[in-house]
Amino acid sequence: MTPEEVRRTAHGPTAGLAPGYAQANLIAVPRDWAYDVLLFAQRNPKPCPVLDVTDPGVRTTVLAEHADLARDIPRYRIWEHGELKVEPTDATDHWRDDLVAFLIGCSFTFESALRRAGVPLRYVDQGRNVPMYVTDRECRPAGRIHGPLVVSMRYVPVDQVHTAHATTARMPAVHGAPVHAGNPRDLGIKDLDHPDFGDPTTPEPGDVPVFWACGVTPQAAVMASKPPFAITHAPGHMFVTDVRDDHYTI
Amino acid sequence: MTPEEVRRTAHGPTAGLAPGYAQANLIAVPRDWAYDVLLFAQRNPKPCPVLDVTDPGVRTTVLAEHADLARDIPRYRIWEHGELKVEPTDATDHWRDDLVAFLIGCSFTFESALRRAGVPLRYVDQGRNVPMYVTDRECRPAGRIHGPLVVSMRYVPVDQVHTAHATTARMPAVHGAPVHAGNPRDLGIKDLDHPDFGDPTTPEPGDVPVFWACGVTPQAAVMASKPPFAITHAPGHMFVTDVRDDHYTI
Repeated sequence: MTPEEVRRTAHGPTAGLAPGYAQANLIAVPRDWAYDVLLFAQRNPKPCPVLDVTDPGVRTTVLAEHADLARDIPRYRIWEHGELKVEPTDATDHWRDDLVAFLIGCSFTFESALRRAGVPLRYVDQGRNVPMYVTDRECRPAGRIHGPLVVSMRYVPVDQVHTAHATTARMPAVHGAPVHAGNPRDLGIKDLDHPDFGDPTTPEPGDVPVFWACGVTPQAAVMASKPPFAITHAPGHMFVTDVRDDHYTI
Repeated sequence: MTPEEVRRTAHGPTAGLAPGYAQANLIAVPRDWAYDVLLFAQRNPKPCPVLDVTDPGVRTTVLAEHADLARDIPRYRIWEHGELKVEPTDATDHWRDDLVAFLIGCSFTFESALRRAGVPLRYVDQGRNVPMYVTDRECRPAGRIHGPLVVSMRYVPVDQVHTAHATTARMPAVHGAPVHAGNPRDLGIKDLDHPDFGDPTTPEPGDVPVFWACGVTPQAAVMASKPPFAITHAPGHMFVTDVRDDHYTI
């Protein structure tokens, strides 16, 4: 499928769809909160690498000129005062003229490079959404925005952890190198089989859990910081851009 | 000299001082203009890679815990409505409680890596400030902020242009790869011997001019956009941080 076909038709998780194209997280907040969000992203570039920011009320982005940010994501989350209200497949009725949309790099973008480097993707092969976990690491706060680091996890054969590190380190705009490999408890994660978002993955013998900073971190910040209103994507249900993934490779 | 010694004693250009430590550009604007500046930086990451942003009125930075941003830069520029008013060596009397300071990556930071890779630095060897030029390329505007791209230029032996490119590409937080090598007119630069900021450099036979995006770009934006008030460093007179330069190498 092309990026446009995914944007028009997909309603599930987007990992592995439109391979070769970058995907992005969404968080849209009222203009009055935009500086706090942008500063939070600047201060936490591993989980929140910003790929584009719209002007207030604008629903288009340089990342995909003909896309509509209020309609072309498979599933949205509508937040009020930090509480999840609904998860529609179209956010048109919720969008407001004062919303500023942030598009933030997504680790799905480095998965083609991982495949090319010979690193298997267990969760994709198992037909599941990537597992994501809230950690015990606090992000650096910014204005009224604070919250914990969220990570995505991929099981990687122990002898390929170095390759996975080296491959993703070259793509800092889509989370870059892992933040941790090995012991989930070092991140305060108690049980890999019960992710906070997404689905559990089954490891193969010799696999090690590898953790990358995740663009769901702004959603954890919404829950913790309670802005009056926000729209995000649903975890794993990303905005598929028209930008080639290797555009973000150094 | 250590970074702290440079901050305490230097009053001239800082290229080559405290080798091994990152240097930074400064632009401080009233809180009311901070979102525009931060968004301008996000939209123009080559000239404006943000290393830190202070809270309003705060004169310290995570980049050098014991430094005072209002005193520890060798020379400042005080701007009113886009006009340069004075160039003091201490900005304490001009600092305001509503100022938000942006520290932006500086290409001096990759010069140790260039030296290690065997690339000579003509302008340092000639005891001059790096030459900087206003180009005919417009930055992507953000809110009330707009202006042209400014570049720094280093003469590089033609057979080392590739090395200079590869070495600096790995340091995107301090401007990364060159934006151009070869013909100054491709950037709208008419005369290399008359830089807009800094000093002219004398090439050696076989040298090619290589251009990097420059952290003086926000000053060109101040001139073009005329915010009511701003404080910047004087070109080439940088804030020397306590962060090792290889912290910014991928």
